[in-house]
Amino acid sequence: MAASLRLPGARPGLRYWSYRQRLAAASLAAVCSRSMASKTPVGFIGLGNMGNPMAKNLMKHGYPLIIYDVFPDACKEFQEAGEQVVSSPADVAEKADRIITMLPTSINAVEAYSGTNGILKKVKKGSLLIDSSTIDPSVSKELAKEVEKMGAVFMDAPVSGGVGAAGSGNLTFMVGGVEEEFAAAQELLGCMGSNVVYCGAVGTGQAAKICNNMLLAISMIGTTEAMNLGIRLGLDPKLLAKILNMSSGRCWSSDTYNPVPGVMDGVPSANNYQGGFGTTLMAKDLGLAQDSATSTKSPILLGSLAHQIYRMMCAKGYSKKDFSSVFQFLREEENF
Amino acid sequence: MAASLRLPGARPGLRYWSYRQRLAAASLAAVCSRSMASKTPVGFIGLGNMGNPMAKNLMKHGYPLIIYDVFPDACKEFQEAGEQVVSSPADVAEKADRIITMLPTSINAVEAYSGTNGILKKVKKGSLLIDSSTIDPSVSKELAKEVEKMGAVFMDAPVSGGVGAAGSGNLTFMVGGVEEEFAAAQELLGCMGSNVVYCGAVGTGQAAKICNNMLLAISMIGTTEAMNLGIRLGLDPKLLAKILNMSSGRCWSSDTYNPVPGVMDGVPSANNYQGGFGTTLMAKDLGLAQDSATSTKSPILLGSLAHQIYRMMCAKGYSKKDFSSVFQFLREEENF
Amino acid sequence: MAASLRLPGARPGLRYWSYRQRLAAASLAAVCSRSMASKTPVGFIGLGNMGNPMAKNLMKHGYPLIIYDVFPDACKEFQEAGEQVVSSPADVAEKADRIITMLPTSINAVEAYSGTNGILKKVKKGSLLIDSSTIDPSVSKELAKEVEKMGAVFMDAPVSGGVGAAGSGNLTFMVGGVEEEFAAAQELLGCMGSNVVYCGAVGTGQAAKICNNMLLAISMIGTTEAMNLGIRLGLDPKLLAKILNMSSGRCWSSDTYNPVPGVMDGVPSANNYQGGFGTTLMAKDLGLAQDSATSTKSPILLGSLAHQIYRMMCAKGYSKKDFSSVFQFLREEENF
Amino acid sequence: MAASLRLPGARPGLRYWSYRQRLAAASLAAVCSRSMASKTPVGFIGLGNMGNPMAKNLMKHGYPLIIYDVFPDACKEFQEAGEQVVSSPADVAEKADRIITMLPTSINAVEAYSGTNGILKKVKKGSLLIDSSTIDPSVSKELAKEVEKMGAVFMDAPVSGGVGAAGSGNLTFMVGGVEEEFAAAQELLGCMGSNVVYCGAVGTGQAAKICNNMLLAISMIGTTEAMNLGIRLGLDPKLLAKILNMSSGRCWSSDTYNPVPGVMDGVPSANNYQGGFGTTLMAKDLGLAQDSATSTKSPILLGSLAHQIYRMMCAKGYSKKDFSSVFQFLREEENF
Repeated sequence: MAASLRLPGARPGLRYWSYRQRLAAASLAAVCSRSMASKTPVGFIGLGNMGNPMAKNLMKHGYPLIIYDVFPDACKEFQEAGEQVVSSPADVAEKADRIITMLPTSINAVEAYSGTNGILKKVKKGSLLIDSSTIDPSVSKELAKEVEKMGAVFMDAPVSGGVGAAGSGNLTFMVGGVEEEFAAAQELLGCMGSNVVYCGAVGTGQAAKICNNMLLAISMIGTTEAMNLGIRLGLDPKLLAKILNMSSGRCWSSDTYNPVPGVMDGVPSANNYQGGFGTTLMAKDLGLAQDSATSTKSPILLGSLAHQIYRMMCAKGYSKKDFSSVFQFLREEENF
Repeated sequence: MAASLRLPGARPGLRYWSYRQRLAAASLAAVCSRSMASKTPVGFIGLGNMGNPMAKNLMKHGYPLIIYDVFPDACKEFQEAGEQVVSSPADVAEKADRIITMLPTSINAVEAYSGTNGILKKVKKGSLLIDSSTIDPSVSKELAKEVEKMGAVFMDAPVSGGVGAAGSGNLTFMVGGVEEEFAAAQELLGCMGSNVVYCGAVGTGQAAKICNNMLLAISMIGTTEAMNLGIRLGLDPKLLAKILNMSSGRCWSSDTYNPVPGVMDGVPSANNYQGGFGTTLMAKDLGLAQDSATSTKSPILLGSLAHQIYRMMCAKGYSKKDFSSVFQFLREEENF
Repeated sequence: MAASLRLPGARPGLRYWSYRQRLAAASLAAVCSRSMASKTPVGFIGLGNMGNPMAKNLMKHGYPLIIYDVFPDACKEFQEAGEQVVSSPADVAEKADRIITMLPTSINAVEAYSGTNGILKKVKKGSLLIDSSTIDPSVSKELAKEVEKMGAVFMDAPVSGGVGAAGSGNLTFMVGGVEEEFAAAQELLGCMGSNVVYCGAVGTGQAAKICNNMLLAISMIGTTEAMNLGIRLGLDPKLLAKILNMSSGRCWSSDTYNPVPGVMDGVPSANNYQGGFGTTLMAKDLGLAQDSATSTKSPILLGSLAHQIYRMMCAKGYSKKDFSSVFQFLREEENF
Repeated sequence: MAASLRLPGARPGLRYWSYRQRLAAASLAAVCSRSMASKTPVGFIGLGNMGNPMAKNLMKHGYPLIIYDVFPDACKEFQEAGEQVVSSPADVAEKADRIITMLPTSINAVEAYSGTNGILKKVKKGSLLIDSSTIDPSVSKELAKEVEKMGAVFMDAPVSGGVGAAGSGNLTFMVGGVEEEFAAAQELLGCMGSNVVYCGAVGTGQAAKICNNMLLAISMIGTTEAMNLGIRLGLDPKLLAKILNMSSGRCWSSDTYNPVPGVMDGVPSANNYQGGFGTTLMAKDLGLAQDSATSTKSPILLGSLAHQIYRMMCAKGYSKKDFSSVFQFLREEENF
């Protein structure tokens, strides 16, 4: 696993400060005139299902926060906890020189950065801006250019792991941007995740995430089709899963997140497909993969079809179910 | 891994005979009047790329063979080694009460069993007939019925692992048939494989194999599409593979048999896609999966498309290349 | 339109007999010793949704019938009308030297011909056996061989047009078999259809039908996707259909059988998808196309996917709806 | 066919002017202060394979042109013919109050309108701006908003028919925009096309075109698959095409542009797939359809796959061939 800085929840002591100073010194050459004290306020924009627990993990690690969300209600509990809530992304940029954004779509991200009262209106030179939204890599690259013109640093760092991992601080971050800034990003991201991976230039974090999720969708549907066919040919599901898992058909979808009820415990298929990673979110990620494939002229025959399948499921009552409910979707019996 | 009987190549001594007797005694109730001495001749029909090394492994374990192949040349080296070559499947059945068949297609299997001089013409009551061909499960079930009428036992036991594993005795056998006969089948199959798995009733061995290979094909194409898209979005292939393999996209195709040249050593992609498991064989297995899905009315959207992709590759010069050459197929650059 | 012999319902007069004799004489060289009188009894096996109205049209044209169906109830009304009902296909063959079969599946057809009391048990030399079932072309070829061994003639003549056209005598027959026998087949088929087309050797009638229906399914789904996309992009459905129909997207599905409610009258989409050509029947034909493509190694990427889509629809409540209900299936809105 | 104003090449006489004045008067309420004299200069931006013959047809109808192209060479012959060539889209807008743009991509269109020296820099109030490029409908809508802010009128009017129809003035234009402006657009477009259809609000012209082309691609591939399967099942291609064309499988691809060599004369399949509508252009249009489907969440299972197929063909030497060469692509025989 990639090394990550996991800052303990304990109060920083002298030993800690020395370590922090050593890290800061090592990064100094490439880092712009950013504040050296790591516990300076961190801006957080977007306190939804994912942003809320992520911001809380930063708080647990002793970072004061500067909060903004288009929905004031989302900020309430942070305000009550004593954090500072401001009224625009620009205001966040004014008060913090490290900002994390966690937004649903490319459009929201562009608005938060380049909008009328966006980050770029007041961003300070040398600031570190980390976007953990999952958006089109070409949009990330555009934002990075704009940020760079203002003398600041942009990194894309989309996440994997879902709401559960967000809460327990076990997210995986796939980070793109200038390599010298990676350590500084790791410092913050390591509070929220157990896996912080450097992927390359800006946009490659998004690329890694959407490629993984496209392969995941294909594997999940493939596992579903193989399990269903095997069952109809007389195989016991648990035995078939066991055989696949010891053979070349082995994949995460079949050995860690099997979609067939009764094969494994502790996964959504054992709980009527509640929780997990929703169909709508998978359809969104597959749409991003499709857009990227179209613009780079990459052939994605199975990926395209997986996208269409999840798109259909959204329209047929599966939007809120875990994406492994595709087994239920394909297996629906004739009812008259 | 499922336990398997691996009979050592050493000469059977007294201790061995006791063990053999114990095993035979335990199976006695369900086993018909078959010879108790395990080193009695074993019939082998089909000495092609797979059958040849499989038969040799039986010889290594001390089994005399009764050999037949439609092509006399295929039998030559066995004849020179002192094994008995006969002139029809019926003759094999006359001289051996355990027979293994290893044939390319359903039609060949039906011919060997039910043809004019087929096994069923002279099969002895209580014989054990193991078909290791990969054929349509419904054909296996038909053959089993015919065999049963003659008072003998039929099991389907298709293999996984390819020519390499056949040579080194490391095949995986997926066995279908009456459970009480499994031990007797294991005795023989364990000489040729390191993994002998009981799957259920007749036909489930075939079912398990084709379900695994369908999922494998889908995963391989999915891995290819994800790797290619990631590369075009700026990711380094080795890094992307590493990320997939630590994430939910993980599968055998990406972590053990990566299709992208330069990512791993010791796999066909590192050797211009030579060797391995050929495209034509994969297309054949996918055709069997498609036929089974059509007759059981099982929806296989990705499986169908994977079949069409491998079918196209056969017609475009990829027939003899390893099936991971789909990466090369999809990635072909515009050349004018 | 291909010329066809449409025998009027009027009683045969002298002029008719002369014509009949001329036709018979012309066919004589290739025709075996079949009865020359055209109004001799015609056997009809399979009196279901299609067979029933087809047989009635033969009656209307003055042909006495020898009837058989596995379900005796299906024969009742013919018995009451004075037709002869017998108790096996063999008995039909004994009493009629021209027989039409109209059965649901390959298995039913094989049973009717080669079963214990099948046609082939008592078929007379020179008989003309026309199978209008839609079955696998390779099965038609097998039946033809068996029939030929008995000195009789076999032709495949599957139909197109549905129950409505069957009732009004407007079916299309696609006929395969020996060309010299076509005129004799036309004589009978022309009573039931307005379009009798010679396609080539045995099996080509089936081939023509399944190729047409595969292209139809692809066009219908394509029309559905294009209409739905256009509507979501702001186009009025009637205007869009009009534009498609004057452009290169024009097809029967869009100009004669549009799947979008409100675009055309007199088609199933205007009547909640009742009647027409059912989803289950389309899925069956697509399964036959898929099987044929797999065995001839023909790539059918869209055809395979169309098959999977209709297969899914059968399992989701669309089995009895007209196949144009795919518009409704794809268009289902999110309901929560 | 939709009525269109076809202005003869003859010199305008008195009768014409009266008609022109009547038309202008009728449109006056909705039309801004645009010049009433119809033979005032028309701007033309983009003189490529399509733009060049289109502009010439305007010249033939007596319209003086104001020309611009990023490649000066493209303007040469117009300059020699006495037309006025300027050095930016802004300059075109300065001198003409009716402008037609014919550009390859959304990016080019945005540049021509909103770029540094774009049309919008100097556009006069009341100008009529017609974009005949085939671009993303959402981009057309964005451009329309920007144009509207400047008090001018924007219409999307993508074309169908290819280079041949462009030369002979037989293009089809699918027009979107404010309905009251349609007549004015028709005046110009009718010089270049024989079919000018009003589709609805801005963006619906693009929508109609991409929906038609998506259905066309699906039909062409479907026709190819059906023809190939039929041929492999023993049908004569010409006979099969004839049967399809009299049956429910009938479509433009099979009855007017058959992809199988030898079936029809005067189409690309009869000429080694030269000329016609290139694979690359079809892939481009399918990419636009895919993007639109993704952003409107419309399921396009066959459309997605058709896009992937044409994308693959571009990378395998088929870019410059007519899109009906998909028959050749799918039919390639095994060559070793």
